[in-house]
Amino acid sequence: MIPAFASPAQREAAYGALAHRFGNRFSQAEAVRNQHVNTVTWVLPEPPEAVLEAETTEEVSEIVRFCAEHRIPLIPFGTGTSVDGHINAPLGGLCLSLRRMNRILAVNPEDFDATVQAGVTREQLNAHLRDHGLFFPIDPGADASIGGMAATRASGTNAVRYGTMRETVVSLTVVLPDGSVSRTASRARKSAAAYDMTRLFVGSEGTLGVITEVTVRLSGIAESIRAGYGAFPDVESACHTVIETLQAGLPIARVELLDAAQIVASNAYSKLALEPKPHLFVEFHGTETATTEQVALFESIASANGGSSLTFAERPEERTRLWKARHEAFWAAVATRPGSRGVSTDISVPISRLAECVMETRADMEAHGIPGTMLGHVGDGNFHAIPLVDPGNPHEVRRMDAFLDRLAARAHRVGGTCTGEHGVGQGRRHHLEAEYGPDLLRAMKAIKNALDPIGFMNPGKTLPD
Amino acid sequence: MIPAFASPAQREAAYGALAHRFGNRFSQAEAVRNQHVNTVTWVLPEPPEAVLEAETTEEVSEIVRFCAEHRIPLIPFGTGTSVDGHINAPLGGLCLSLRRMNRILAVNPEDFDATVQAGVTREQLNAHLRDHGLFFPIDPGADASIGGMAATRASGTNAVRYGTMRETVVSLTVVLPDGSVSRTASRARKSAAAYDMTRLFVGSEGTLGVITEVTVRLSGIAESIRAGYGAFPDVESACHTVIETLQAGLPIARVELLDAAQIVASNAYSKLALEPKPHLFVEFHGTETATTEQVALFESIASANGGSSLTFAERPEERTRLWKARHEAFWAAVATRPGSRGVSTDISVPISRLAECVMETRADMEAHGIPGTMLGHVGDGNFHAIPLVDPGNPHEVRRMDAFLDRLAARAHRVGGTCTGEHGVGQGRRHHLEAEYGPDLLRAMKAIKNALDPIGFMNPGKTLPD
Repeated sequence: MIPAFASPAQREAAYGALAHRFGNRFSQAEAVRNQHVNTVTWVLPEPPEAVLEAETTEEVSEIVRFCAEHRIPLIPFGTGTSVDGHINAPLGGLCLSLRRMNRILAVNPEDFDATVQAGVTREQLNAHLRDHGLFFPIDPGADASIGGMAATRASGTNAVRYGTMRETVVSLTVVLPDGSVSRTASRARKSAAAYDMTRLFVGSEGTLGVITEVTVRLSGIAESIRAGYGAFPDVESACHTVIETLQAGLPIARVELLDAAQIVASNAYSKLALEPKPHLFVEFHGTETATTEQVALFESIASANGGSSLTFAERPEERTRLWKARHEAFWAAVATRPGSRGVSTDISVPISRLAECVMETRADMEAHGIPGTMLGHVGDGNFHAIPLVDPGNPHEVRRMDAFLDRLAARAHRVGGTCTGEHGVGQGRRHHLEAEYGPDLLRAMKAIKNALDPIGFMNPGKTLPD
Repeated sequence: MIPAFASPAQREAAYGALAHRFGNRFSQAEAVRNQHVNTVTWVLPEPPEAVLEAETTEEVSEIVRFCAEHRIPLIPFGTGTSVDGHINAPLGGLCLSLRRMNRILAVNPEDFDATVQAGVTREQLNAHLRDHGLFFPIDPGADASIGGMAATRASGTNAVRYGTMRETVVSLTVVLPDGSVSRTASRARKSAAAYDMTRLFVGSEGTLGVITEVTVRLSGIAESIRAGYGAFPDVESACHTVIETLQAGLPIARVELLDAAQIVASNAYSKLALEPKPHLFVEFHGTETATTEQVALFESIASANGGSSLTFAERPEERTRLWKARHEAFWAAVATRPGSRGVSTDISVPISRLAECVMETRADMEAHGIPGTMLGHVGDGNFHAIPLVDPGNPHEVRRMDAFLDRLAARAHRVGGTCTGEHGVGQGRRHHLEAEYGPDLLRAMKAIKNALDPIGFMNPGKTLPD
């Protein structure tokens, strides 16, 4: 059911009031609106009617109440680096940018936590933490805001060891759809005090309220960090190396698969010179003794699976270059087909089924003539096929839709999920019924309706209509 | 608001129908009813009107629908080892025991997960897993059911390294209050697919539905396990040792504080012969190289804080004896005052404030003449003061109530929670408003009401009226 929002005339009157109240922090300029839409992937941009930059939680509360009263869709915005249309405005409305809320409020080194405003980015926080010997371990690639990462339950390359935002968020300050402001939990490391509202808001994609502050758990920077890469004869042997590594209890910090097509693309885009074979990029954290032992154990497992020995990035700059190349992989893939858009798929499956899913997906792309690459956070059973599409070609778009449906069905068939880390946004709403069944979806909608009966918080996202 | 439940006559008619349907799996015998109440702590037992043992998820669904239709309170029951009245029946009703649902449904060693029926206990699962080289790491002491541990968000001695049920539950099968059956998530290690219903049910204490199956994440049994204990001059130096251990990034598997009073009690009850000083009980997991390094680092930190060197439990039997003594600590405390009941307090605070909270709590007990001991999962900032009360003495009961309120207020003042792992049950409902504020509590109640509009799922628990 689509909620009854204000008419265009009512909205324009309301925007006039906001312009009066917030001055140049409010804008309806086309250029500004077009900066606050999906820009990364093939999801079509749908600009909001207006953009407003809040500076405090109190202002967010005021704006939420205003939009509820005037029945205007409200779309929270961090850095706009999400990839599935989370920040699009399919029903118009107001984009609430949190980028000015970029203060680091507290760092408690003894408690391994920091509290930040939602607009603080992960690189900003890590730069601030460096002197403490601590870091914020979640690394989705983009320099996303911590609030946006919480809202989308982000993860990335460190998740195999350090977890995702699900494990890393300690507590949130949220503005509920009624405008009230709450702290969802204390700073204690664990709690059994009633419903886990923190986890309910982590991943709620702005549909249950606005996250304005986040307390995150930090990790100590390891004494020794060793990163490197190795080639494998095929994807299957690389996956088996990862399974055996985890079974050996080796606390690997990062383990990323790039298939041969991705290596070719990254060689060209990121100026690498790797063999055109599937590779694992890996990183080990610990004491000197521990990483030495980990590397030796990993190499023996890789070698037994036909892998090459590791080439290490010895200096910090080389390590940065390696991970930069990994983070540029999406753009490297897109660059192989000028004029195309990348589609960032994201299934996550039990790791025992990963190799089969990767290979079936590659065969599917080949059978349907879909160009693209594959890479993945293999320690989590999470991989991104990046098929490339010409969005102006209806045949290609239809072919892509069918491919995405087959991919989700493949994940569901082996006990996996349609999205490991990117979230639902606009693009995956129709996969949820197959993932959860109608009864659990009905329960989710009941929760949404209980907290946001008007339905104005980021409408058209997360849950199917 | 107390829901309008069936009258006594209506209930008896309904119980007659259940007796007819379920035969000797249904009972109203007083002895059976009295086995299905709080028996561990000072919370007074409140027996249900009847007890029914389900054997399948389908039966649970049928019983849930039946109780909804007949407006009969329904109280899910695992092993009855919770300590705050979670399984009491203050409004009468039916106790739904899951103890016959004790089958281990699947173990997937490559995926590090197992799926069990809710009545499987943690020791049963661990005995089953031994041949796989894997274990289920959550250890609350009692041989609790996995379903009950999920429902109460249990943790225990391994949580500092392996997390709590919050991190360990992968997915649940739940029967919602409308009788529908859903799986809350796939078996993927991570997911960003809409609301985290798994985490909402973990810790919901039977108030949102009945958990009938649990998929948990397993860990590999370490090649080397070293456990031991050391004495400290005072609680503060023991706490500082723990803080510095964590800051050094040392992945300690267990670190438990027992104060001098607890050591005296445990010496008598568990036949130990420890110095009557505060102790840390510790355990290290890893490769031989890793635990050797960890032990050396820990000992240097402990020594700098005035601690003795560690006495190691060299053989597995000695290790078992050490942890058995730790798990018996509650009974050891109770045994110091014959005729008393133990009150299992459970605050969890930021670790930087732990030493001060422990010492203030000890001073509070002394100032008010309350006997008892203290011990804690110090790596989590979670500690249990175990004051002892004569439940037949109204003066002592009032004094205890006041002490518990001061303890919760102390936790809140330093950014902590009234319960780290035991849950709310009946005893802590009145602390939630101070912990979360009225607005978040209202949101929790809205969720409860959205999923259970009749209010028959474990009424009188978790949320205040």
